[in-house]
Parts: sequence; C-alpha cells; structure tokens
Amino acid sequence: MKVLFAPDSFKGSMSSAAAAKVMERAFQSVDPLIETAIKPMADGGEGTLSAMVNAIEGDMVELGCTGPLGERRTTGYLEIGNKTAVIEGAEIAGLPLVPEEQRNPDYTTTYGIGEVILHALDRGNKELVLALGGSSSNDGGLGVFQALGMRAYDADGQSTGCFGKDVMKVDSVDFTSLDPRLKETTIRVACDVDNPLTGSRGATYVYGPQKGATEKQVEEYDQALEHFGRLVEEALGGNFSCEEGAGAAGGLGFAFLALGGRLFSGAELVSDAIQLEEAVKKSDMIITGEGQSDVQTLYGKAPGYVAKLAKENGKPVILLSGSLDGPMDELNTIFSGCFSIVPGPRSLGSCIENGEEYLFEACRQMAHLIWTILQK
Amino acid sequence: MKVLFAPDSFKGSMSSAAAAKVMERAFQSVDPLIETAIKPMADGGEGTLSAMVNAIEGDMVELGCTGPLGERRTTGYLEIGNKTAVIEGAEIAGLPLVPEEQRNPDYTTTYGIGEVILHALDRGNKELVLALGGSSSNDGGLGVFQALGMRAYDADGQSTGCFGKDVMKVDSVDFTSLDPRLKETTIRVACDVDNPLTGSRGATYVYGPQKGATEKQVEEYDQALEHFGRLVEEALGGNFSCEEGAGAAGGLGFAFLALGGRLFSGAELVSDAIQLEEAVKKSDMIITGEGQSDVQTLYGKAPGYVAKLAKENGKPVILLSGSLDGPMDELNTIFSGCFSIVPGPRSLGSCIENGEEYLFEACRQMAHLIWTILQK
Repeated sequence: MKVLFAPDSFKGSMSSAAAAKVMERAFQSVDPLIETAIKPMADGGEGTLSAMVNAIEGDMVELGCTGPLGERRTTGYLEIGNKTAVIEGAEIAGLPLVPEEQRNPDYTTTYGIGEVILHALDRGNKELVLALGGSSSNDGGLGVFQALGMRAYDADGQSTGCFGKDVMKVDSVDFTSLDPRLKETTIRVACDVDNPLTGSRGATYVYGPQKGATEKQVEEYDQALEHFGRLVEEALGGNFSCEEGAGAAGGLGFAFLALGGRLFSGAELVSDAIQLEEAVKKSDMIITGEGQSDVQTLYGKAPGYVAKLAKENGKPVILLSGSLDGPMDELNTIFSGCFSIVPGPRSLGSCIENGEEYLFEACRQMAHLIWTILQK
Repeated sequence: MKVLFAPDSFKGSMSSAAAAKVMERAFQSVDPLIETAIKPMADGGEGTLSAMVNAIEGDMVELGCTGPLGERRTTGYLEIGNKTAVIEGAEIAGLPLVPEEQRNPDYTTTYGIGEVILHALDRGNKELVLALGGSSSNDGGLGVFQALGMRAYDADGQSTGCFGKDVMKVDSVDFTSLDPRLKETTIRVACDVDNPLTGSRGATYVYGPQKGATEKQVEEYDQALEHFGRLVEEALGGNFSCEEGAGAAGGLGFAFLALGGRLFSGAELVSDAIQLEEAVKKSDMIITGEGQSDVQTLYGKAPGYVAKLAKENGKPVILLSGSLDGPMDELNTIFSGCFSIVPGPRSLGSCIENGEEYLFEACRQMAHLIWTILQK
C-alpha cells in the first residue's frame, strides 16, 4: 500500500507543503511502515514555488532583482531539470510585497520578472514555467518587455520609465533589441482566468481596484492598455489582446502571449512540472485537500486536478477539506469521498488556528479506517 | 456487504431512530442494492423506548396511568416477546412531563410506574426491563411501592399519600399485600450511576436540585429517605440503600433493588433487549454515532457498547459524531475510525438545526469511499 499526499494549501492555515507533511505524519502514526510520497500541489497562484520546492527535486537559484516598487530585493526561481525554470511572479513583484497603503498601479512594475527571466536564460534554461497570480501591477507587461530589451518612447521620443504610470505615456515601441533567446524559449504560463486585456472584462476593470486603482485610474488604464496593446501587436504581429487570459496579472497574460508563450491551467502546469501523474501511477491511493471546497473545486483548482489524474489512473482519491459547501454529487463523480477536517461546531478562527491539529486527526482516523477495512 | 446502523440519538437534533434512518438512506443513495439493518440504540435514559420501538419487533401497549403530578395521562410500554415488557419511567413520570415552574419533589410521584408494572404483569409478562432516566421525583419509590400493594402509615397510623412530601411522614410500612407475582418476575433496571440512596453522594444531594429541590428540601429529603429506606430494609430484609445505583432516579434504584431487581448498564440492557449482538454478527460493518463524543463514549455510552460488540465479533465499526473532543487514541482501541459530521466552521445552532443533512452527507461520503476501496 503506497499513499500519495497531494494537497493544495489550506489558505490562511497551512501551506500545501505543511499540509502534505501533516497528512504523511498522520498515516505513519497508524502504520510506521506505510510507503508514502508527497507532492504538495498549487494552482499557479501565490505559493506555487514553495509547493514545488517540496514536490520535486530542484535547485533554487537566488538573485537580486527589481521589486514591485522599483526597490532592490532578493528573490529566487527553481530549476527543475530539463533546462526548465519555474518563476513565480508574486515572489518578484507580488501584491503581498507592497504595503497596503502604497498599493497604486501607478508606482508598481513588472520589470523584475523580466530580469529574472534573463537570469534564467543566462543559465541555459530553455523552458520557462511562469506563475503570475497575486500581481501588484497593471502595466500591461511594460516592465517585463523593457527588461527583455524592448524600448518604449513617449510622444517626444524620450524613453519612458517602467512603472504603471509610464504605460500612459507610451507612444511607440521598438522590439528590435528584444533578447533573441526568447525565440527559442518555451514559455508556459499558469493562467486560470479568461479575461481579455481591456474592456469591461479586462485586466483593469476586473482586477485593477484590488491593486489600489481608483475609479479614475481604472478608466485611464483601460484606455492606456488598449493603446499600448495595439502598439505591441503592430510591432510583433498578432491579436493577443483579445485572447482569453490576456488580462491576467495586469496584462502580463498579454505580454507573454505576445512573446510566444502559451497559457495553461495552473493546476495542470504545476502538476506537469512536479511530475504528479507519475507519482499517481505509482500509488495505490491519493489524499488531497484544501481550505474550502465546493463544486468549483472541479474547475481549475488543484485538488480537482489531482482527482482527475487519480480517476484517469483508476486510483481512489480522498478529499480532506476545511469546509465542504453545497451539494457534493458532482464532486463524487471524481472523488471517492469528501470529508471535512473540522471535528465539531467550531468557529472559522478556531479552524484556521488549529488547522494542523484538525487535519492530522482527520487523516489519522481515515488511515485507521482504511487499514481496518483493507485487513478484512 | 451488509451494514448495520446502530446510533444513539444526536441530542437536541435527532432521535436515534431518525439518525439510523438517515444513515441507511445515505448508504442506499450510493448503492440501492446494499443490504442494511437498523438498530437505533439508547443508554437507558430518556428516549430508550422510542429507540427500541424502531430496533425490534414488538407491540406498544397503551394504558391510562397516574402522571408525575398525580394527573391522569396516557402512556405505553413495549412488549418484545418472551413475556418481556420494556417500561420507560420518563414516559410515565419523567421530568419533561412536569412544567418547569411546577418542578418540586414535594408534588411528584412514581405511582404511575407501579401501575404500568401491574398492567404488564396482568398481561402475563414475566420479565421487566426498566429505564428510569429523566425522573422528576425524589420519593424513594414510595409511589411505586404503594401501587404494587405496600401500605405506608404515618405516626398516627393513617395511610400516607404517594407524593414526595408524604415520604417525610412515613412511620411504618407493610409489604404483606405486595403483589405476589413480583416474586416470580425478573426485574432488570438500566442504571449508569453508582450513587447510594442517601448521604452527600445520594439521590437527593446529587440529583434533587435539578428536580427543583431547595437547599432546605435537600436536607429534609435526605433524612426522610434514610428513615424510609431503613423501614423498607427492615420489612424486606437487606441492605439495599448502600448498593451502587440505589440513588438512581430519586431512589427508584433502591426500590427496585428491594423488590429483587438487578441493575445493569443501560446500553448493555438495551442492547440485550433489542438483540443487538445477533445483528452485529450478521453484519459486515457497523456504523454508530451520537451528538458528542470523547473518551467517555467508551464508558456506558451507547456507541461505546456498540463498538465493543463489534470489536468482539471482529467487525469494523465507524463512529459518526456531532463533535469529537479530546484525544482519540483510546477511542481507536475499539473504533475503526471516528469522524465528525460537521462539514466546516459552523455554529452549534447550525449543527443542531442541520444535523440530519450533515449526517446524511457525511454518511454518503463514507459509503462512497468504502465502496470505492472495496471495489479495488
């Protein structure tokens, strides 16, 4: 009997790596000789890199880069073999790195993400896996483009800066100095939204306010990104701004589409990168989990993807969740069983605070039950 | 695969019969062809009779009797074959039958319980199973004794009444007219307390206040029961008042010990009466449950007794509880697995209100999981 633990994070309570280790410890407490494997999962949003560090052999590469507010900071990316680098935008220019009172798309940039990409290319990587969730910027990729060699000019022919406010000024762009290695680089972007770059469903209208954009800024940025998008499209040839996902991460979706990247479901991309399916094939049972579950768990969330792989490979898969909401029928089409880890009437605060303990005990009971049944 | 459902009640939310049916319905929703059996359990307290009605073939016998306040009321007892009658004291003279503002041991009596016993004897029953939990009286069995033919006199040689206040006046007792059939009757009493009749751990000091006794009454009743107990013991020969459980149900424990009865763990007695062990033997898996569980569940509570029978017969047994509190290690010595039915952070009120729904879903997930595992 070999059990694979592949949870997502329990948001606010445990990272996916912590949850996977708690699960493993609980099963081992019932049978110290049990064979286990852990593959902490992520959905391409915040925490993707730290989950992957625990799910796959790889080397963290540290480097200095430009932070979201233009400051210098230290960040890292993960090399997972096969000349593949995994880069998490939130670790470079993420919203959590910007103090709440300073959140304003005028003063944030994605320049550092471009720097990190160059560093990865310098080290010979040929494939980039990019997780862009949790972005602080609304620059349409201006910063990334510039770091990679694009030039942007204002109406007076002066080079523009790389911050959000600068995208308003861009009047022409020049990609002739774009790093030529990008042409031979596979860029895969984790993206679970289908917003276009602009318009009422675009990057600015939908996600701008949560990054601190005022109503007036939202209008201005939407127009600015439309203009900037057109310039980039004319330069590179293509109609990227209307593609699904172009509006992800303040327009980074658009930028990477324009650079030849392809967008994938985050859970699928992470799963591929950590070789989850191989681990599923080698296991007899899979335990996954997350902080809150409902029918949406099946659509783009990590436990849903884990369960899909388990089902395709004919393995039982159990969901342990901080909260099960709504009808479970659809979940049972791929999950063998869905259980809450909450031991009784408890407040949300208590559940978050005691998440590890609740998960451990629920897991231990599950292990105890499964062992008893299988021994009959 | 045959599954037996033998829960206790989920106090405040579901009777044990309702819980058993919800569990059965949940398993059938996963596999309509599953073989099931239900044996709602009880621990000899309130609800014992209604649990048994659903657990075993039997005939409810209706009759009129004296209620706890001396009023006439309709009650019933259960004949379960083998000339055995199951009588629940709370259905005749229970505390819930007395409006809160009228709770006062001076004005309650157990006379009706004696009447019901006579009725059962008239119908040829030779064995009585008595559940006495939830009593409203503190009469030391005066009412029961009188209904069964004992005479009690005050210091002036006048017959006393049958209420609590009358026990204070009793100066002599005469058992010569006691119904002679009692001698050939097996009396088995469900009792999970070990209190003696009197003293600081006695019926009055420990349970009097919850029946409305004032501090002054507690002192008076404790003395009165000591005197009354001595009179009964002199008349019948024996030292019943010191036996463990004599102080149960306002001294009814004492009364039935004096009448030749024996006290048993309530869960064991109910289990015997409903032939639970036979059902366990015929099943492949047992599901039990209750409103709240902790290590005490193992000691005298219905699910603990169910699990003990399951373990003795080598069957997996699962506990589904409204709340799991404290360490589970000891519970796992007999339970295959203990799970909460609460689907996430929820208030106690919400858990009580939605108990059926939560139980159904938790059970359904359990069935789904077990089926998946067993089909591998």
